[in-house]
Amino acid sequence: MAKSDGEVKVLGTWSSPFVMRARIALNIKSVNYEFLQERLWEGKSDLLLQSNPVHKKVPVLIHGHNTICESLIIVQYIDEVWSSAPSILPFEPHERAEARFWAAHLDEKWFPSMRAIGMAEGEDARRAAIGQVEEGLVLLEEAFGECSKGRPFFGGDRIGYLDIAFGCFLGWLRVTEKMTGIRLLNETNTPHLLKWAHRFCSDDAVKDVMPETEKLAEFAKMIMGRMRGAGKS
Amino acid sequence: MAKSDGEVKVLGTWSSPFVMRARIALNIKSVNYEFLQERLWEGKSDLLLQSNPVHKKVPVLIHGHNTICESLIIVQYIDEVWSSAPSILPFEPHERAEARFWAAHLDEKWFPSMRAIGMAEGEDARRAAIGQVEEGLVLLEEAFGECSKGRPFFGGDRIGYLDIAFGCFLGWLRVTEKMTGIRLLNETNTPHLLKWAHRFCSDDAVKDVMPETEKLAEFAKMIMGRMRGAGKS
Repeated sequence: MAKSDGEVKVLGTWSSPFVMRARIALNIKSVNYEFLQERLWEGKSDLLLQSNPVHKKVPVLIHGHNTICESLIIVQYIDEVWSSAPSILPFEPHERAEARFWAAHLDEKWFPSMRAIGMAEGEDARRAAIGQVEEGLVLLEEAFGECSKGRPFFGGDRIGYLDIAFGCFLGWLRVTEKMTGIRLLNETNTPHLLKWAHRFCSDDAVKDVMPETEKLAEFAKMIMGRMRGAGKS
Repeated sequence: MAKSDGEVKVLGTWSSPFVMRARIALNIKSVNYEFLQERLWEGKSDLLLQSNPVHKKVPVLIHGHNTICESLIIVQYIDEVWSSAPSILPFEPHERAEARFWAAHLDEKWFPSMRAIGMAEGEDARRAAIGQVEEGLVLLEEAFGECSKGRPFFGGDRIGYLDIAFGCFLGWLRVTEKMTGIRLLNETNTPHLLKWAHRFCSDDAVKDVMPETEKLAEFAKMIMGRMRGAGKS
């Protein structure tokens, strides 16, 4: 099934939800790629700095002579280049617009709130951030109904653009649930998303890329420890 | 040339660069539309609140039964629906990715810096914001060379996605030049962008939509006055 369409490399880290997007999109298209792990705490590689001089961030997709940055742009590029394999974006323009709308909302509003839970100073700030994450999940539960139309994924019968955009945050959502002791995805408020999350994580394109919750929780503790240390110095 | 593909409406304001994107894209495609002006200072219309319940922001494109929010998503929707008219996004996937990258960069980094000039408290903050805007313009001058390949627009021989994304900020850039007394686009640092800006503003799809600098400057003064007033109360 693997395709040989020029050399494909992904610069990234195992823990980044944004890097996971590029890897899942390549898996959906059955494209072989080399995963070059960055060790950001030890300094960014010359290849990363050369490939993404504006933002200096992972993921970067290298495809032959082309470099592509920003995870959602990479996913669209992969969909457009390997267009004969299963489609990632919906076919219909309005459905494409809906998927793009919610994916942008996740990155601009929802994920920053989830990240704010771990970084919150004081119980009030922490509670406010948890509330925003919960409200966002209720909106996404509604969006799931509209986009999936009773099928298993946002994208319909198989994983699509919005599944990738949202699903990549599930590892960090589980870590947040573990740290707060709150079931953010639950039977009461988000019953469809709860089932969708299980389906997403056990999909062939995803299961080898999604980090284990324990390992990610250890990593999160280490990051927060370093940030607090840096804040004190 | 006008097309009748179902009822098309744009909810917006004359002064918003983001609204202008939707209007220019429709003009490029020769699509007739009704422009419904919002008066945001007097309260948002019910139609806006119903059409964009998540962000409650302009622009909103209403096309028959479909509503589409977020300016760059609207431009892509217009390009996909009226696909037989001149293309807005480039054809080649890597060029599409480049155009999307710079458009996202404009919205996430560059325009917030320009807005920060007017809102800066103190000369140091103002200088820092001006410096960021100037650095961003030098990057965009380089991007123009890469994208246009010697042709008149980022999109090649005619206005494309990145032209629309960036060009819509030219009115506010001129207001900022007027208020600071600094020529941000100039022969020394951004000679190609300077010429491009003239071409963009005199294009048939743009000239009736681009606000006059004097009118926009008056509007900017009014907004800043209200914001300072609100800050004091």
